[in-house]
Amino acid sequence: MAEPLVVQLAHVEIVSPKPDQTLWFFHDLLGLEETTREGQSVYLRAYEDWYHHTLKITEGPQAGLGHIAWRAASEQALQALAERLERAGLGRGWDDGDLGHGRAYRFVTPEGHPMEALWEVEYYQAPEALRTALRNRPQKRPLRGVPVRRIDHVNIMVQTVGPVRDFLVDLLGFRVREQKIGRDGEEVGAWLSVSPLVHEIAVMRDATGSRGRFHHVAYWYGYPQHLLDAADVMADYGVRIEAGPGKHGTTQAYFMYVFEPGGVRVELFGDTGYLIFDPTWKTVVWDVSNESDLERSSIWFGGRLPETFYTYGVPSVGWEAVGVRR
Amino acid sequence: MAEPLVVQLAHVEIVSPKPDQTLWFFHDLLGLEETTREGQSVYLRAYEDWYHHTLKITEGPQAGLGHIAWRAASEQALQALAERLERAGLGRGWDDGDLGHGRAYRFVTPEGHPMEALWEVEYYQAPEALRTALRNRPQKRPLRGVPVRRIDHVNIMVQTVGPVRDFLVDLLGFRVREQKIGRDGEEVGAWLSVSPLVHEIAVMRDATGSRGRFHHVAYWYGYPQHLLDAADVMADYGVRIEAGPGKHGTTQAYFMYVFEPGGVRVELFGDTGYLIFDPTWKTVVWDVSNESDLERSSIWFGGRLPETFYTYGVPSVGWEAVGVRR
Amino acid sequence: MAEPLVVQLAHVEIVSPKPDQTLWFFHDLLGLEETTREGQSVYLRAYEDWYHHTLKITEGPQAGLGHIAWRAASEQALQALAERLERAGLGRGWDDGDLGHGRAYRFVTPEGHPMEALWEVEYYQAPEALRTALRNRPQKRPLRGVPVRRIDHVNIMVQTVGPVRDFLVDLLGFRVREQKIGRDGEEVGAWLSVSPLVHEIAVMRDATGSRGRFHHVAYWYGYPQHLLDAADVMADYGVRIEAGPGKHGTTQAYFMYVFEPGGVRVELFGDTGYLIFDPTWKTVVWDVSNESDLERSSIWFGGRLPETFYTYGVPSVGWEAVGVRR
Amino acid sequence: MAEPLVVQLAHVEIVSPKPDQTLWFFHDLLGLEETTREGQSVYLRAYEDWYHHTLKITEGPQAGLGHIAWRAASEQALQALAERLERAGLGRGWDDGDLGHGRAYRFVTPEGHPMEALWEVEYYQAPEALRTALRNRPQKRPLRGVPVRRIDHVNIMVQTVGPVRDFLVDLLGFRVREQKIGRDGEEVGAWLSVSPLVHEIAVMRDATGSRGRFHHVAYWYGYPQHLLDAADVMADYGVRIEAGPGKHGTTQAYFMYVFEPGGVRVELFGDTGYLIFDPTWKTVVWDVSNESDLERSSIWFGGRLPETFYTYGVPSVGWEAVGVRR
Repeated sequence: MAEPLVVQLAHVEIVSPKPDQTLWFFHDLLGLEETTREGQSVYLRAYEDWYHHTLKITEGPQAGLGHIAWRAASEQALQALAERLERAGLGRGWDDGDLGHGRAYRFVTPEGHPMEALWEVEYYQAPEALRTALRNRPQKRPLRGVPVRRIDHVNIMVQTVGPVRDFLVDLLGFRVREQKIGRDGEEVGAWLSVSPLVHEIAVMRDATGSRGRFHHVAYWYGYPQHLLDAADVMADYGVRIEAGPGKHGTTQAYFMYVFEPGGVRVELFGDTGYLIFDPTWKTVVWDVSNESDLERSSIWFGGRLPETFYTYGVPSVGWEAVGVRR
Repeated sequence: MAEPLVVQLAHVEIVSPKPDQTLWFFHDLLGLEETTREGQSVYLRAYEDWYHHTLKITEGPQAGLGHIAWRAASEQALQALAERLERAGLGRGWDDGDLGHGRAYRFVTPEGHPMEALWEVEYYQAPEALRTALRNRPQKRPLRGVPVRRIDHVNIMVQTVGPVRDFLVDLLGFRVREQKIGRDGEEVGAWLSVSPLVHEIAVMRDATGSRGRFHHVAYWYGYPQHLLDAADVMADYGVRIEAGPGKHGTTQAYFMYVFEPGGVRVELFGDTGYLIFDPTWKTVVWDVSNESDLERSSIWFGGRLPETFYTYGVPSVGWEAVGVRR
Repeated sequence: MAEPLVVQLAHVEIVSPKPDQTLWFFHDLLGLEETTREGQSVYLRAYEDWYHHTLKITEGPQAGLGHIAWRAASEQALQALAERLERAGLGRGWDDGDLGHGRAYRFVTPEGHPMEALWEVEYYQAPEALRTALRNRPQKRPLRGVPVRRIDHVNIMVQTVGPVRDFLVDLLGFRVREQKIGRDGEEVGAWLSVSPLVHEIAVMRDATGSRGRFHHVAYWYGYPQHLLDAADVMADYGVRIEAGPGKHGTTQAYFMYVFEPGGVRVELFGDTGYLIFDPTWKTVVWDVSNESDLERSSIWFGGRLPETFYTYGVPSVGWEAVGVRR
Repeated sequence: MAEPLVVQLAHVEIVSPKPDQTLWFFHDLLGLEETTREGQSVYLRAYEDWYHHTLKITEGPQAGLGHIAWRAASEQALQALAERLERAGLGRGWDDGDLGHGRAYRFVTPEGHPMEALWEVEYYQAPEALRTALRNRPQKRPLRGVPVRRIDHVNIMVQTVGPVRDFLVDLLGFRVREQKIGRDGEEVGAWLSVSPLVHEIAVMRDATGSRGRFHHVAYWYGYPQHLLDAADVMADYGVRIEAGPGKHGTTQAYFMYVFEPGGVRVELFGDTGYLIFDPTWKTVVWDVSNESDLERSSIWFGGRLPETFYTYGVPSVGWEAVGVRR
């Protein structure tokens, strides 16, 4: 088992047609801290995120995915990865870097989801008022909203799961932790990670047959009570809850899905899920042609997933749509 | 405002065609303690219930309500209540008492739900192995299942809400804490209490038009985490969850509804809800002809209530069906 | 058992030498909402408190208790109470009322703690931005700090428990729910209520022998997780935690004690405790001359109570110190 | 940064002079499942532990550590590790394996704590009654006690931290995640891991100056509520709680320490703590010559650590005391 070339989800950029409301959602309700602003973008992070930012909100004409950034295992791993992606025809070249990190290699999945990998990161430095005596926490716990603790994972929608799953495994070094297989053996979802987390990325079949769309970004609470608190607050402040709180069979995540005002689905992750330490872990396979497995894997308990869960996604804006070094 | 003649939900008797599985559900999963058995009945209580029993499970041909018992405010109140009910034509006479309490006055609601009121109660005495040093707890916390703490309330289904609500208010002394009014001003539900709890009894319109059926009995956890634990256990051990976990707008209860194996719906109450201390409390009225209020009152967050929630109930076995002094 | 003349803790006034920091503590950390300001006072309430205010912070030269206000059972009860207190020589006359309530009858405990009783109350009206669709909640849940839900109880320190306990029982109508008896049968504490809560007021012997001091006011969360969240925030923002989180044997409260910056001890109540519905409840007596009972009653689990818990209190400012109709 | 040769804490063997009570503690209170018994030993695991056992309780004359077992990264890694340890003079030779795993290489720390490394593991196969539909869980959630989810870490006491810390880093491949430095720069504790967990092993200076003792084994809940439940149950059933519930600054663990009836300290871990995904993580250093850091690192909130925490440990029984292939 080769060591993965990427080790961590570094940040996600989303595009919002309503940047003020989107910012209100992440800053006031989820307690993210704004690090800085530049141009049409605001950079934020949760209070246990160590780097400069884990979320970049960029104003744009419609809701979409800007890009997904992975931290490489090392400078060498980054170089190796760039070469591999170049050879695979999925590379889009080096970028000088954005605020908060050094040069990044841009690439796309086989369906065009824009991603980048980077090595050098800038660490967040808390201003005086937010400095904490808790040496393993980058800032004081915020006094705003129901504050999330850290970025957790992304979920992308695809026309065909297999090639994107293989891409993540073969080129980036992910391992397939769980999988859903439907009728005729068709793969309908895969959950992959490079760490003991069950997933840093999930790949799900798009029920509309579209290519390259984005399903959600997830931030993590760790405590179910906070998910309930967040649900109470979302209901009170008019944020649309799509599903949950509930528990998935797959990944055992205690989940809630909401739409931020710009239109991107956000998962709030209330549980710790389970962690995988076994180096010989065998992919957990759910046979969802089987009614029981289908239901159990989607919802272990807590309501149902509505149709939109399988059909609604936002487009990937793509590296082509942005210039180099915004 | 006259003082209520009853002060507390004392116990509930349910009838089960599968008494062993019903017992497994309450004893092994919900951690109720068996006090005693007699004839076709088993008497149980939760670990913070002070009296001899709060649940009586009686074997019978089909799932049903045996009766609902209220504790009177005093011996005098009990006598006054009996006279009132006699005059109202709803009395069914005195019973010498069952295990665990003194003589009881039997009566029915206008739709025939069997009830009784009693004054003298026998307190539970923990056996040596269950005696606790915690002087305000009647026994040690059980090491079984996800143990509920105490009985909380009952919910009855009716053909017409008004007369049953009036009966509870005028004869027993309940106050109407919340109410749902539908199209044409028809009342579709009422939540009533004689204490700061929002309800010890709810009365809901039966969507099938039936009279005198029983909706559910609720046991209380107080902590949402335990509701999640119970949901996890129910899913694992094959108990059917009808709805939840979620939060009602009405009563702000953090709820979950399940069916015990005999067929009676049981609510597990994970929240503390809110308490009413204001002596001039004005009934909270939800106008459910209004879509928003309809949805908010049923589900503040957490999925949807399925059709069965409005159509499934179990019959009241009735005082007629049982002899006096079983 | 006569019905109590008072039914509810209405509000508490504390005096602070550092009003800005005291306000920061209650508003920013505990999420209380400011209703209004007048003169040297700020009026606040928690988001599930229905009345105009439950806390009045008044600037003064040193930390102290302003007064404790009780809501009477009715206008008649208020009148009867005033007459009783007048006869007992503890009355201090009528006041025209403060912001948020009608006329109030002022009195003192046998050790001089200033109290008042009132009947007419003004209900809080949420401004547009805080109006909620949840009809049984007076305002939206705040997006500030770890917001407490409602006022819960007060605890007063006394030179001798008996007379103050008798005063509360005989004149105001409280019932003694729990009691601690020490060596030589001396009563060292009593917990009293007029509702199913175990206490709206506790009376504890002052280890310094002082008379008429104030121990703490408690606000309620209902969920232990929020107590842990509050503890985390207090540690991060430099608020001194005196004891807890932990669980008392007495009342089964899941507690934490902190000092607001002005010097008044505040309890944050994380649990639901237990509720008393039994009209024949027998006072739970802890024999604290017995080592085991002593320890169990103070701390069921969670550390120890430091010496300050028994010796630190703030003086009662007293009706004499304030003019009529501030 | 070389990849670690070990990847996971596999199991711990403790020695108990009261094996029945020790078994009661782990089986009835903590909900561990017994896999099998052989000779004087019982093998158990928590319900989210995948392997044959994570705890082996062996009867013996006094409380002690039997051994700590690590799973190697691969068969090759195991071989390499054995050679390294052999060369370092700390190897104790191969053992044919115990129930539940293949051959193991035995070794000791520089202070003699007995350890082993193994590669081949036997997976737990749930009996029919415990099989679950949740495919990523090895068995149904138990209906006993307050069930822990998985083994988490061990903590060993040493005369001198440095050499044992170096041994873990240089020979086994651990990384130092946090560290406490005392007066004169003396290291008083180190927390090390081979995964995103902050520690699978901690090394703490023994205040008595003893060598090679064992401090505790920790099982994990993930939810603070369960820690409170466990505390309530421990208090009720007479298990001695040494400290907590509370939150350490170091590792941010939400902890509770109890003594199982045989005398071994057990930590119940209620939190998720924080996870380390940054490949360039810099050891968090607490300067405990500084009063504030000392207090913050030990207790972020929740009482104090008593003297016993620094002085009580159990001896390591040692490979010498046991034959090969028990």
